[in-house]
Amino acid sequence: MDIIVQKFGGSSVANPELITKAAKKAIKAKEDGYGVVVVVSAMGKTTDNLLELTSQISSSPPPREMDMLLATGEQVTISLYAIAVHASGHEAISFTGPQVNIVTDNRHGRAKIKSICKERIFEELQKGKIVVVAGFQGITENNDITTLGRGGSDTTAVALAVSLDAKECDIYTDVDGVYTADPRIVHNARKLKTISYDEMLELASVGAKVLHSRAVEFAKKFDMPLHVRSSFLDTTGTYVTKEEKSMEKVLVSGIACEKNEAKVSILEVPDRPGIAAALFQNLASKQIVVDMIIKNVSEGGRNDISFTVVDEDLEAALNIAKEFQGKYDAKNVIWDKSVAKISVVGVGMKSHSGVAAMMFQALANKGINIDMISTSEIKISCIIPLSDADKAVKSIHETFHLADNIEFMGDIEKNS
Amino acid sequence: MDIIVQKFGGSSVANPELITKAAKKAIKAKEDGYGVVVVVSAMGKTTDNLLELTSQISSSPPPREMDMLLATGEQVTISLYAIAVHASGHEAISFTGPQVNIVTDNRHGRAKIKSICKERIFEELQKGKIVVVAGFQGITENNDITTLGRGGSDTTAVALAVSLDAKECDIYTDVDGVYTADPRIVHNARKLKTISYDEMLELASVGAKVLHSRAVEFAKKFDMPLHVRSSFLDTTGTYVTKEEKSMEKVLVSGIACEKNEAKVSILEVPDRPGIAAALFQNLASKQIVVDMIIKNVSEGGRNDISFTVVDEDLEAALNIAKEFQGKYDAKNVIWDKSVAKISVVGVGMKSHSGVAAMMFQALANKGINIDMISTSEIKISCIIPLSDADKAVKSIHETFHLADNIEFMGDIEKNS
Repeated sequence: MDIIVQKFGGSSVANPELITKAAKKAIKAKEDGYGVVVVVSAMGKTTDNLLELTSQISSSPPPREMDMLLATGEQVTISLYAIAVHASGHEAISFTGPQVNIVTDNRHGRAKIKSICKERIFEELQKGKIVVVAGFQGITENNDITTLGRGGSDTTAVALAVSLDAKECDIYTDVDGVYTADPRIVHNARKLKTISYDEMLELASVGAKVLHSRAVEFAKKFDMPLHVRSSFLDTTGTYVTKEEKSMEKVLVSGIACEKNEAKVSILEVPDRPGIAAALFQNLASKQIVVDMIIKNVSEGGRNDISFTVVDEDLEAALNIAKEFQGKYDAKNVIWDKSVAKISVVGVGMKSHSGVAAMMFQALANKGINIDMISTSEIKISCIIPLSDADKAVKSIHETFHLADNIEFMGDIEKNS
Repeated sequence: MDIIVQKFGGSSVANPELITKAAKKAIKAKEDGYGVVVVVSAMGKTTDNLLELTSQISSSPPPREMDMLLATGEQVTISLYAIAVHASGHEAISFTGPQVNIVTDNRHGRAKIKSICKERIFEELQKGKIVVVAGFQGITENNDITTLGRGGSDTTAVALAVSLDAKECDIYTDVDGVYTADPRIVHNARKLKTISYDEMLELASVGAKVLHSRAVEFAKKFDMPLHVRSSFLDTTGTYVTKEEKSMEKVLVSGIACEKNEAKVSILEVPDRPGIAAALFQNLASKQIVVDMIIKNVSEGGRNDISFTVVDEDLEAALNIAKEFQGKYDAKNVIWDKSVAKISVVGVGMKSHSGVAAMMFQALANKGINIDMISTSEIKISCIIPLSDADKAVKSIHETFHLADNIEFMGDIEKNS
């Protein structure tokens, strides 16, 4: 019996009607002959409501107790989902994370899965039941309930799929797949049939919110195919799989745009070893996640250090930057909250040159100034003015002909 | 270190403000030098809300999944309670029923506790923490979550108190103790300082809703003192303890009145062995709980059988009674929904006669007709017209001088 894991996010199980609808997806797969394991998140706004209750009691609740609290959200959904399956005349059984021994480390609020006990799940699948497991939660070796943090239910689903040696892991969500760009901005954005784990990781990290990067990393590590698809439609979505030969022919798979960015620059920093380390250690110690980092080539023993953070962290980052400025006698700290990061991602870049030049030209054609540039093997990111963000996405989408469902090589030369 | 178990019902933890208030009760006991274990119910209307969600999905949800769902209610409260203790600068740790191994049988929705693992609780008490345990829930030997049914949190509290050899079990609730009668009906009703387990059991079973009878039975079995007291006031409440010599001097401890009763009579039933058994087996098979049963002395080979049920069960009971009438050739079935059951309870009755006569006289004085009578060793119950219920309670309260905080022997002769 082939096993399929289906994961439903919070917006896909936000009310009893949607839960009943989601249950039909599992029943369909069951009727198609699969062993079906379902992973669900908390219903819609449940987590927000629990956080609101907590905020009325304490501003600094102990993380262990927050996990105890938040874990109830998924427990409500699993039981309602199992009830919905029963109501349709099929059998289902629900399990909390602890019940199927999803053992994690003890970092409350951001625990990592160490092992899963699959015996009980197999046992129930053998009996013909649809098994419904609470996402996002686990238990420590000391029997304390933990949660996995952001994207935790995706991670639970992929971990279960790997553990059960499933055929694939279906991620049901409120979009019907991964697009070449945000369809709300680019009206002829195209749904991708397939995308590689690495491309998905780059897209996930730059603002395409359909899949959490931890889950994609997990899937990549164990080569578990992910199928991102709609809870509300009956269509094929986008497969996230290992890189295939055919993918290399596609230069750029998608464009992502992160508008929630702020830039900080410290000007004329003395160019001594260890200075950059000191700055970024200070930022890290305040839990500030730094995205792009640019350090210019030195001239006259001084150089400029720039970095980006999410808007919410700007104030804290500025405090550290100014303290740093005083301590190391830098000239000035400047910042800009009105910036966006635009990225193009594609495994084809590995074997083709000129992608960066094309992207820069697309921006130049629209008179958009590039503030910072950062590249990885399969991604090019630019910081541009926030007000130009949508225009930039459209221009790049057009330049790379992403709306066309055909292989595009353009005037790019293949390397070697 | 003496241990105290404190139990807070749903209305005592209905919102964050009340939870914070309830947390102060535990902190006070902790500061008084006790090891404190807290048992909480689900917040206010939580259970109703979960049932409402379910009803939108299925009219006959599987009991196992209902337990999975309902158990989340208490889990929310334990974490918020622990957070509230922390917010006041003390340490607390919360546990679900499964986490402290409250092992039950597998009768979902009405499970019975088989054992409790107290090691983890002791361990945390030794560390100086207030231990907060979810009431109402447990786990089977097969690792399935169960709930204990009505009054389940009381039962959890008493079971924990017994298991931990606690000094007492405090039941915090929205009334400040057990009264001689409902203070909303009898304005000079008096709060009892003590009441015996047996009296409390009789009162619990006739409509005094402060304590569930299962919990009282448990407390009686293991001689665990219960202290029924207010969550909102700082007063001593009523101790429920084993029967003491002094109690016998008090003839009647309290009066209870159950208005949600309906009476069914089957007239002129042939008087043959096994006929009553057949009737009440049929009622039991439909989960109808029969309260009072009266069978008159036979005359001419035929007699009348009367019984009472709660109003909600009247229709189902009538169907069975009419079927029975046809099958056994009884004359007629009559019923009355407008009846109340009024009961006087007191261990003093064991050693005194004339209590029943005094009660009947109190009713006769007000022109109240008695429809049915039933007695136990320490209780006398009468079925009377519903419209006379409040008048009857007041008259009996006065007749037995229950408002006076003094021993009353009246004109009753002590037996032997």
